[in-house]
Order: sequence, then structure tokens, then C-alpha cells
Amino acid sequence: MSFYKIRLLTAGESHGPALTAILEGLPAHIPVSREKLQHQMRRRQLGYGRGARMKIETDEVEITAGLRFGKTLGSPIAFNIHNRDFQNWENTMNIWQKPVESKRAVHRPRPGHADLAGGLKLGDKDLRNILERASARESASRTAAGSVCRQLLERVGVEIASHVTRIGSVCLQKRDVSWQNIQKVQDSEQFRCVDPLIEQKMIEEVNAAIQERETLGGEFDVVVRNVPPGLGSHIQWDRKLDGRIAQCVLSVPAVKAVSIGDAIEQASSAGSQAHDEILYEAKRGFFRNTNRAGGLEGGITNGEEIRVTGFMKPLSTLMKPLQSVDVLTKEAEEAVVERSDVCAVPAAAVVAEAMMALVITDALLEKFSSDTLEELLAALDYYRSQISQY
Amino acid sequence: MSFYKIRLLTAGESHGPALTAILEGLPAHIPVSREKLQHQMRRRQLGYGRGARMKIETDEVEITAGLRFGKTLGSPIAFNIHNRDFQNWENTMNIWQKPVESKRAVHRPRPGHADLAGGLKLGDKDLRNILERASARESASRTAAGSVCRQLLERVGVEIASHVTRIGSVCLQKRDVSWQNIQKVQDSEQFRCVDPLIEQKMIEEVNAAIQERETLGGEFDVVVRNVPPGLGSHIQWDRKLDGRIAQCVLSVPAVKAVSIGDAIEQASSAGSQAHDEILYEAKRGFFRNTNRAGGLEGGITNGEEIRVTGFMKPLSTLMKPLQSVDVLTKEAEEAVVERSDVCAVPAAAVVAEAMMALVITDALLEKFSSDTLEELLAALDYYRSQISQY
Amino acid sequence: MSFYKIRLLTAGESHGPALTAILEGLPAHIPVSREKLQHQMRRRQLGYGRGARMKIETDEVEITAGLRFGKTLGSPIAFNIHNRDFQNWENTMNIWQKPVESKRAVHRPRPGHADLAGGLKLGDKDLRNILERASARESASRTAAGSVCRQLLERVGVEIASHVTRIGSVCLQKRDVSWQNIQKVQDSEQFRCVDPLIEQKMIEEVNAAIQERETLGGEFDVVVRNVPPGLGSHIQWDRKLDGRIAQCVLSVPAVKAVSIGDAIEQASSAGSQAHDEILYEAKRGFFRNTNRAGGLEGGITNGEEIRVTGFMKPLSTLMKPLQSVDVLTKEAEEAVVERSDVCAVPAAAVVAEAMMALVITDALLEKFSSDTLEELLAALDYYRSQISQY
Amino acid sequence: MSFYKIRLLTAGESHGPALTAILEGLPAHIPVSREKLQHQMRRRQLGYGRGARMKIETDEVEITAGLRFGKTLGSPIAFNIHNRDFQNWENTMNIWQKPVESKRAVHRPRPGHADLAGGLKLGDKDLRNILERASARESASRTAAGSVCRQLLERVGVEIASHVTRIGSVCLQKRDVSWQNIQKVQDSEQFRCVDPLIEQKMIEEVNAAIQERETLGGEFDVVVRNVPPGLGSHIQWDRKLDGRIAQCVLSVPAVKAVSIGDAIEQASSAGSQAHDEILYEAKRGFFRNTNRAGGLEGGITNGEEIRVTGFMKPLSTLMKPLQSVDVLTKEAEEAVVERSDVCAVPAAAVVAEAMMALVITDALLEKFSSDTLEELLAALDYYRSQISQY
Repeated sequence: MSFYKIRLLTAGESHGPALTAILEGLPAHIPVSREKLQHQMRRRQLGYGRGARMKIETDEVEITAGLRFGKTLGSPIAFNIHNRDFQNWENTMNIWQKPVESKRAVHRPRPGHADLAGGLKLGDKDLRNILERASARESASRTAAGSVCRQLLERVGVEIASHVTRIGSVCLQKRDVSWQNIQKVQDSEQFRCVDPLIEQKMIEEVNAAIQERETLGGEFDVVVRNVPPGLGSHIQWDRKLDGRIAQCVLSVPAVKAVSIGDAIEQASSAGSQAHDEILYEAKRGFFRNTNRAGGLEGGITNGEEIRVTGFMKPLSTLMKPLQSVDVLTKEAEEAVVERSDVCAVPAAAVVAEAMMALVITDALLEKFSSDTLEELLAALDYYRSQISQY
Repeated sequence: MSFYKIRLLTAGESHGPALTAILEGLPAHIPVSREKLQHQMRRRQLGYGRGARMKIETDEVEITAGLRFGKTLGSPIAFNIHNRDFQNWENTMNIWQKPVESKRAVHRPRPGHADLAGGLKLGDKDLRNILERASARESASRTAAGSVCRQLLERVGVEIASHVTRIGSVCLQKRDVSWQNIQKVQDSEQFRCVDPLIEQKMIEEVNAAIQERETLGGEFDVVVRNVPPGLGSHIQWDRKLDGRIAQCVLSVPAVKAVSIGDAIEQASSAGSQAHDEILYEAKRGFFRNTNRAGGLEGGITNGEEIRVTGFMKPLSTLMKPLQSVDVLTKEAEEAVVERSDVCAVPAAAVVAEAMMALVITDALLEKFSSDTLEELLAALDYYRSQISQY
Repeated sequence: MSFYKIRLLTAGESHGPALTAILEGLPAHIPVSREKLQHQMRRRQLGYGRGARMKIETDEVEITAGLRFGKTLGSPIAFNIHNRDFQNWENTMNIWQKPVESKRAVHRPRPGHADLAGGLKLGDKDLRNILERASARESASRTAAGSVCRQLLERVGVEIASHVTRIGSVCLQKRDVSWQNIQKVQDSEQFRCVDPLIEQKMIEEVNAAIQERETLGGEFDVVVRNVPPGLGSHIQWDRKLDGRIAQCVLSVPAVKAVSIGDAIEQASSAGSQAHDEILYEAKRGFFRNTNRAGGLEGGITNGEEIRVTGFMKPLSTLMKPLQSVDVLTKEAEEAVVERSDVCAVPAAAVVAEAMMALVITDALLEKFSSDTLEELLAALDYYRSQISQY
Repeated sequence: MSFYKIRLLTAGESHGPALTAILEGLPAHIPVSREKLQHQMRRRQLGYGRGARMKIETDEVEITAGLRFGKTLGSPIAFNIHNRDFQNWENTMNIWQKPVESKRAVHRPRPGHADLAGGLKLGDKDLRNILERASARESASRTAAGSVCRQLLERVGVEIASHVTRIGSVCLQKRDVSWQNIQKVQDSEQFRCVDPLIEQKMIEEVNAAIQERETLGGEFDVVVRNVPPGLGSHIQWDRKLDGRIAQCVLSVPAVKAVSIGDAIEQASSAGSQAHDEILYEAKRGFFRNTNRAGGLEGGITNGEEIRVTGFMKPLSTLMKPLQSVDVLTKEAEEAVVERSDVCAVPAAAVVAEAMMALVITDALLEKFSSDTLEELLAALDYYRSQISQY
């Protein structure tokens, strides 16, 4: 388990009967709103350039354990997301029976996907055995789990938002966008870009990609604010919160690079321009006027906003397929084409928000008494009063 | 534990009596060379722009458990690196006794370090209580542990190298450097940059920084080659090897961004230019002509070189100190100046190599029978023969 | 996670909509039989002295992930066991809504249950918030997960059985029952006791207990045979397989003591009578004529049968309730009476078998290459040939 | 890792240069007394019937990390116990060099030890490669680590004691010994038995065993008092504290059975006699007049004393060696005789105390805010006040 206090396992094949997740370790007594949960599920399905599947209907999450009367019990929470389209896949993805005539076997691995690496690992020639689990659909489970964490974080005043800063060659130049401006961006069928002109160009970029049967990647920023200082730890390499965040963000499908704060710019700066000088005022306590560190110093939150950038590669399933090889015949062939999106950066940002909700929740519960929400709130109060007297 | 098969804990304060590490889970019967181990320790101390501490003498690693007659026993390996300078610090870092007059207490936190965040977390006013453990010196322990893993990897043909691609504003334009060229770079007092002209400019950059009492960061690439396909897994977010690698590289002190393969460039590319087409030849099996994915698809190694870039911020201890606040008086003051380096990118690259050795070893042992080296070699043979018949 | 290679989380309240489990880390390509799975579920419901719930109908397990065409995919397996009786509990256990009139709140904690300790821990006055999760019903999830492990173990020749050796004051004197005799015992509505005369007395013991509105505990033995030597490890306290087994068996509801082999008898023996002398024959290899160690020496399997005894206390819910206190009024009251069994030792033995299947699978997969069943079989073959040449 | 909040790794071969341990996760600011630490080390060496090694000198623990000025820093604590006798073993256990003439190779495995199982596992013919790590000497590391936990527990009022209740056939009939009586037993060269007459018989039992060149096992009870209710959890099988305790106690060398409270007696009792009725008084809160559950209900502490019994088999190294086989020649031979004890039950009880200190500390820190001792004390205060108002 990469988390320290909570535990999360997800299961489910993309076209199987259902996605399932179990999330354990949250305090008892957190009010959980079904609407807020569904809101996050819907956000994951938005964005310009999404494929047909997103249009079907919002993924509906059924919770079957861990809640009673709309509050957490402190016991493991079970999430199920049924696949509304399963009847059309029952032959292909039957749990128990092999159909007389098996269709939709996949023999032409897609570059960029787990298809071939997974096929070699497992000795499978029907690469569907791999791609069904490797699909980004799994991230719906994590969005659901993250949404409950987010509702916990709200109770302690921690908020999470994201915005899209690049789609292909179109990018937002000004990166230091304020929380208020990020907050203002509407969830929409488009890109959650803070600049409407840039957003328009992003749409054009996607339209061009559709035309050329291409796919596009991009970049997004996730911001978490009002995080207490002192989460994470410097005492062991794997307890540093920035590394834990990096793993979480890199686990979002197609995200392959991650930066904390302005780290990439800092690599070419001088030291005097790369850190956040420390200031103090009696009523504010310690504060900074810059946030190049993205809220983390020495693997520990410093009380400033956590700012993380994810870099997403273009999706690996192209309508204009890449060169591949048939694993049965070893002949050169075009890669298989599975139903997919042209661009999914806004969705990836939502999943990254969910992962941030999970990892920040984990760090919070690791630090504070938290069998119940009340206990957590009392522990935070005590800690904040200690800090104010530091 | 962030590893799945091996376990590693390190201990030790920077100026305390010793650094200690315990590494558990390696196969029995691996020949371990003391020279190779010391060679890695020495490499970590090299590089232009290092501080006085690096000059003292090479860190000497004492192994007190887990080896017998130069081979691993399969039991936990204990590493000790004694602090040759401890007699000068016994008053400051005494384990048992508080000296009559305590010196070297630290009250002016350095921006960019764990000092203030850690001080708030632990309620400590002498920030030495935090910075001694948060210091990059701890990475010597991981270099030692990684070196033993590296000697295991050698036995299965896996090799690791790194080179420095940026120091401050000076950077190597051509990033796609071949393994052969990386290998050719000598360990030296300088930068392990593949281009001697660029390296000369890097030296000048550091000289200028010294002049201005600045510090510098930069970038480095780590390459691991001959890794079998199929390490890591797509089945759960936290088993994906790219995320695990990201955490490892981000755990290197001052590294705050990480990219797998060409991920940052890919974020602005079209899908057709972002993936590695799949080819096949009877005698080579599957292969690629490009390696944009950096050897990882779907969280699984694909048999190509693993290529990872680390982005390092400038060191946080400046000779021209940043603005800070005295935590006792709350007055504005300059941050404390602890003995430090001006630039440590080559050292960070060596530590990143060690972390890669650890994480690849972990993934290897997770996949294959490995109570002994012989068993591991037999398991790899079997697997490779299966793959060749796939 | 207490397992080293597999991961298991279960969720679900006793009277909630469903039990859910996710089991991760099994090899791909294991044939899974629904009948065998249901057979284990049914066995858990058998035994003389069970309550009304067991009569309703066999728990039916729905698998929604991790299998395709009757074989494991290597991805996480999701199990759901729907509560057929949920419509009668929807008011009491509603996930989202608090009913106008909440019934079945529990205020009189049962001695021996988690009720009071959990109520204090979570500050809950309706102890149903605790007891629903603490209920032994959760063990159905583990029985399901264990059954799939068992089907894997079968493929490598490992078999598991159990028998009941004590119900209350009635006990089987001869403990060293052969595998063949244990195997012969029929699953039945009674006790799976190898001696029909003793079994008859056990039934009478339960009849008397019913009469007196008492409950009964007892003892059972679980035996695992054909386990390869070398599972588990001596190198770290928490890798010793006997300790891991102890935790597993003690996690079976109401089991509070565990013995490996003849450990309790050995505590009063002399050394010369307490160990299993080592013999060798060319065609058998090393063997023993006794098995006092229960198949484990130094935390490692030695190739003999693993033999474990679980001691189960009488169930905590008595029809003749124990003295308790109303947590609202603090008045002395009788403990609440929830529907329960009089005696559930045979069921506990089945759950213990499932836990043994899980922990032995974990140790097996920890030791051997096991991305696929074929790989596991090949690794075992190699290992066995090495042992035969030792 | 079997712990949830702390992490512990130990390393070291019995006759190697040193034992090493790293313990991570304790709060900062715990005062640690060297005398108390050494006191526990000495206690582990006491007891009638110990071998020559115990006489040499008390094991001295050197702490080289994690403490400053006699208090914990919150960073990992490193323990080293140097082997004073290493110069006599340098040829046998050299880390780097194989001596020209290797002595003390072991080819005749001892029944009951890891020797043969480990030899088969690792393919080693010199069984010293296994037995050096499997030796009970490793438990000195855990005693040291446990002692620091114990000093933390003291600060929150939790105390641990043990007494020996059986040596071979001699046993204390009355098991329900009060804390006060256990406390009164002096650490001594004898048995820490609460009844001097029984202790005398124990000594005679050992004298007889020495005469007959036998070894003896026995039983001990460990008691932990003043543990707050609510540690551990019912929500997942592996979070139940009784199972975690069972693993800890079974990890003590030669301990192969464990019982929580009166569990073995309860297995033959009726329900009405097997549980602890719940009572309440305004000034005491909830309490019990019996403690059959040993302080744990539903995997959670209930505030009563935790009472655990360990059953230890006779030591496996007999002066009158058991039948074995030479692994080189496959000829029947007597097992090797390594220097050993005749009886080590009191020492095992001390190690079990240390394991209890570790596991209770783990459960305590898992539940409460605990970056620092002050924070832990405040969290406990808050919790206790909540409980008193429950």
C-alpha cells in the first residue's frame, strides 16, 4: 500500500460488469453527500474531445458499505459502478463462460498502452486480457473514492481545484493563476481553462486533431489550499509527501511527468530566485509572498497552497492507427482501434484532484487522531493553537 | 513501505555519530564487492562546486550484517557510515547528554528546507532537531544500499548510468544521448556531462555562482538498460512502475520534478509523434525505433531503456542568505548558513541511480523467484525463453 | 497489509446491502469453479446449533472483476454477496437516509463483543454502528476470497482440511488424526468430527446448551498438506510464517488462542520429546516420523503437514443475556439479544481454512515467480528439482 | 510491515560483528534513559539454566541516531549491539573474506530449528548461513527497540510485566495472578515465578534436565495495564489487535502457541461463564469484575488489563543431540551442538514484553496524534475526557 493510514483497492475491467473499490480508514461521522459524489463523477466525464462512452450517461456510484444514514461508520466503504453497457459485452467479457464464438479479441497492440508489455508479462495473446484492466476507465473508481475524501477535507477547510494549462501546442503562458481565478472556472463541456481565449484555441486544436485523426495531451495544475503545515515527513525517503504526491499524480492514466511548484523553472534559476523567503506578522503567523516550492519543503507541507503540475501524453489509441505487429502472425499491422477519446486532459485533471484528495487525506489522518470526525477536528484545533503560539 | 519486496530503512543525523541503513529482501549468494560499493560512495561526493565536507575523505561503509565471505546471506544487510568529524560535534549532537553550553542551535530557518515546516510540526525551536535528519547527507545511506542492488542487477545484465544535462541556465540541447555515450563519461571532479564544451560552460556557471554567493540546480537523466519487459503492473494504481520510480526520484534531496521518457515534450505533441511504434524481427523479437515512453507503457517495462529525468532546484543554503525570521524573537533576520555545496547535481544523479537500482531490484524480485541468485537467474531464463516463443 | 504478496480488503455491514471483497495479486490463468466457490460458502453455513440466518439460503457470491471466461486475469477479483434480507433492514441500515423512526438501535452492549469497546472508541451510542461491522458475517467475504486461493493451491497440489475436536466439554482425545481420516469426514449439518461417538456427544452438548439458553465454543484443527518446504522466512520477525498464520487464525471471529503443531503439549515436555528427528531416504528425501512442529521450523515450512489448532470461545450473544449497562441511561440492564448461533465451531473451522488458504497462497506467491499459473508451476518444478538434488 | 504506524527492521548474525536495529515512527521529545534500556537488556540475559554466552557480559546497546540530549528527535532510532566475542569468530563469520580454512561449518541440522528448512530454501549446505540469523540472539535487538517503546508507554501510564507460569512439568496452578503480585517478583537469576515454592521446583526441574542433557520449555504470561480502551479495530481482519498481538508473541523464538486471556479455558466453558459482564459506576465509568477476555473484545482494547500467555517449546539444541542427517553425505548423524541454553523461558517472557511494548505503542500511535510526546498526551487527555462523558 502506498498510503500510510488509509487503504484503497480498486477492481474492475473496463467492459466488465462493474467497477468496484474499497476505501478503508476514514473517520466515522463524516457526512457524505450523494450529490457531491455524483458531481465529481460527472466532472470526470466532461471535456471537449471525449469519445462516445462519455455521452452515454453519468456513471452512477452505488455505495453498499461503510455509510449509514448518510454518514461514514469508520468501516470500509464499498463503491460499485455498474457498466450500463455490459449486456453488449457479455459475450466478450463473460466472467464464467467462454462464448462459442469469441469476438473482439485483440492481437494488434497499441504503442503507448500496456498491451504488448502486458501480453509478454502474462503470455496472453488476446491482449484484451490486459487492456481491459489497464484502461483509464478504472480511474472512475478512484474518482469516487477521492470524492469521499474530498468531503472530509471540506470539513477541515481544505479545498482542491484544478485547471487545464495546455492542450497540445496551445498553452496558458501565465502559470501563477490565483485560487480565486481557478475557482471561477466553470465545469463545462470544454477545458476548464482560466483564459477564455486560450480555451477557444484549445477547442480549435482539438478540432484539428479530430480532423487529422490524431490525439492530444497537455498539462494541468492541481491546487490544494488551506492545508495545515506539518503534513508529511522528512524522516524517511518514502514518507516525504512530495514523493507520495508524485506517485499519485503519475498514476493518473497517461500522465508521465509531474512537477511540484515551479520545479522545472527552478532547475535553471539561481538559488536566490528559487525559494520562498520567510516573513512573519503577529496576526498571520509565518507566511510567504511567493510559492515556488508549491507548498512543500523537505517533504512537509508548509501551509502554502500545494501546487502540482501533471504532464499528459496524447492518448495512445489513435483513429489513424500507429504501426504495430499482429502477435499471432508476427506480421506488421496497424494497431487495433478501441473506442477512445481524442483528448482527455480535463478528465485527467479531475482524477488528479481525486488522487490529491486521497493522498492529502492520508497525510492528514496519519498525523492526527481521527477515529471520528469530531476527534480529528479537536486534534486540528489543538495543533493550530500550538502553532499560533509557536 | 513503498517497496513491494525489499525493505529499506535508514537512520542517522547529518552530524550525529553515524548513518545506518538496513536493507532486507535481497537474494542469497550475490557476490558483493567492497570496491564497487566504495566506488559508488565516492561518486556521490564528486562534482564541481561541492563544499568542504566532500573533501574530508570518502565515506567509508562498514557492513556488519547480511554478508558472509563476500556474499549475501539472504538476511538483512546492515550498513554503517561513521561520521569522521563527530568529535567536533559531540557537544552539539550528543546522544545522551545535554552539554552545559549548547552551541550551534538554529533559530533562523532556511527557505526551501524542512527547517520551518518541521519546526512547526514538532514544536521545536532549535531547528537543528529537524535539519540534521532532513539533510542530504542521509542520501549516503541510500547510495550504499543502492550499490548492493546494483551489484545484483549486474548479475542479470541490468546496467544503470546517468549524466547531467543542465546546470542553471546551461543545458545540453540534444537529449537523446545514446547509452554508449553516457557510459563514456568519466566520473570526475566535474559534471558528467556528455559534451565537453557544455561541461566547460557549466563550470563557468558554477564559478559565477560562487562569485555571487548563489547556488544552482539543474537536470539529469538516469538510464537503466537491459531491463526485462514485464516488470511493474497495470493492475492497481500503486503497482505501476512509473509512479514508483517517480516517488524514488523525487525522494532525492532537492529534486522536485520528474519526467519519464520524453513526457514533457509529449504533452505538446500529436499522438502520432508521441508513441513508439512496434516492430518485430524473428531474431530480435519485438522492438522499437524510438523510446519516447522511456521504457514504460501502462506502468510496465517494455524492454526498452528506462529513461528518467530529474529536475533539481538550487540548493537552499545560500552564502548570501535569504530573508527569514528568528523563531525565538519573531524578528526578521537572514537565514542561517550551514556548510553546504554550491551545486550538487552530479551527486543527485548518483543518488537517483541508487534509487533506480533499489526500485528496479524491487520490481525484479517482486516478479521472479529469488530466494537465491541462482533461483533468480533460472527464473529469468525461463521467462526469457517464454518471451522468445511468445 | 499483513500479507506480503496478495492484498485483501473486505467491506460490508452484517445487515447492509452487501458484503464486498477485493483480492489482488493472484496469478493469471487460474481456472476458477463457481461450484467450488459456492461449496465453500455452503460449508461455512453448516453445523449443528446454527441460527435462523443460516437457514435462509446459501450465500451467493457474485464475481464482477478479475475473471474472464472462468479464469483469473491477474487483475483484482471483486466479490459481492448480496444480503437477501436487506429489504427488511432498509430502515435500519439505510446508506443515505435516516428513517423517520429509527428502530433497532442498540444501547445495551454484549460482553465479549466489540460493542462497548467500539462505542467508546467512536463515541457512538447506537452500538449498531459498531456491531454491524464486527459481526462474524464478514467472514463470508473471506471465505469467498479464500476459496479462490484454494483453487490455486489445488493446482499445485496443496490441500486443506479441518475437523472439530472440541465442543464445550466434549473433546476428541486423540489429536493426531491422519489426513485420510480428516478427509473422510463429511460436511454435514453436524460437526465434522472424525469420531461419530464423540460427534453424537457434541450434539447432545449443544442440545443442552440450547435448553439452558447458553452458547458453546470449542476447538478445531486445520491441516494443510503437500506444502513445499521453504515458505516463510527466518530473516525478520514479521516474515516468520507461524506468526503470520497465528494472526490469520486469530482473526477468525471468537478465536482467541492458537497453537502450531503440538505446541501446548510441548511446553511441558522435555526437549528430546518435543522435536521431529530428521531422516533421509534416497527416494523420499528428508522426512520425519513425527510432526510435533506442525510443519514449521524457524518460521519456515519444512514440508510436513502444517497443523494448527484454533480455540474458540463461546459466542457472545446469549439468549440468556449477560449483565450489561444501558449506555444512554447508565442503568444496569441485560445485554441486547441479536439473532445468533448457539455454536459455530464448524463454521469457524471453515473460515480458518479460508484464512490458511490465503496465507499459504501469500507465502507461495512471495517465494515463486507467479504472474501466471504456468510460471508458478514452472518455478515450483525448478525448485523441487533443486531440492531433490540438494 | 506488520506494524501500522511504527516500522522496525533488525539485522545481524548471531556471531557476526553486531546486531543492528532501526525503529521509526516514535514521537519526538520522549526522554530515553540509558539505564532503563540496559536494564531490559540485562533482564533478557537472566534466568536459571542459561548458557555460557549470557555470562560473558551484559549486551551493551549503542544508539547512534534518533536521540539528541537524551530525547527522541522523531527521526529513526538506530541501535547497535556489538558482539564482544567477534574476534573469536572472525574466521567463521567474516563479512568480506573467506578464510583459507573455514571452520565451524554446520552440516547436521538440528530438529526444531530453521537449519534444514532454511538449507533447502536457500540451497545452502553450510547451515550456518541460516542458523546465524535464525538464532534467538536476534531478539536482543527487539528487546532494545521495545525498551524505548516502553519508556514512551510509561509516560502515558501504560505498564508491562510478565511472570513465568510453567517450566517443563512444573506449573503454577493459580493463573489469575494480580498485577501487584506480578510486579513484586524480582528479576533474578531464577524464574520470575510469583510462587517461591513453585520456583524452587522449577529450579529442580532444570537441574534434572541439565543432568539428563535435556532442554525445557514452559509458559509465561505478559500483562499490560492501564491501556486506554479503543486501541485496535474491528473493521478489518488484520487491524484486530488480538491478531497483531498473536503474531508478535509467536515471533518470540520457540514460542509456538499463544492465548489471549483465558481463551483455552473458555473453549470448554459455557457462554455465561466465558465473558466479562459490564458494570458501571459514576466515578469509575464502565468496568468489569472479571477479565476472561484478556482486555480485548472484537479486536479492540476494552480498558482492562491485556493478558497474553505464550507457550514455549523446549530449546532445539540439545546436549544429547537428536537424530539427524549429514546434508553432505546423507548419512544418519547426530545433530550439531551449538552453544545454547537449557531453558530460556524467563528470557522469552522479557522478549515478549518487548514485543508487547512495540505492538501497543503501534496501536497507540495509530490512534492518536503523536508527532510529539506533548501532542500525544494532549490527544489522550481529550480522548479520556470524551470517554468520561460518554
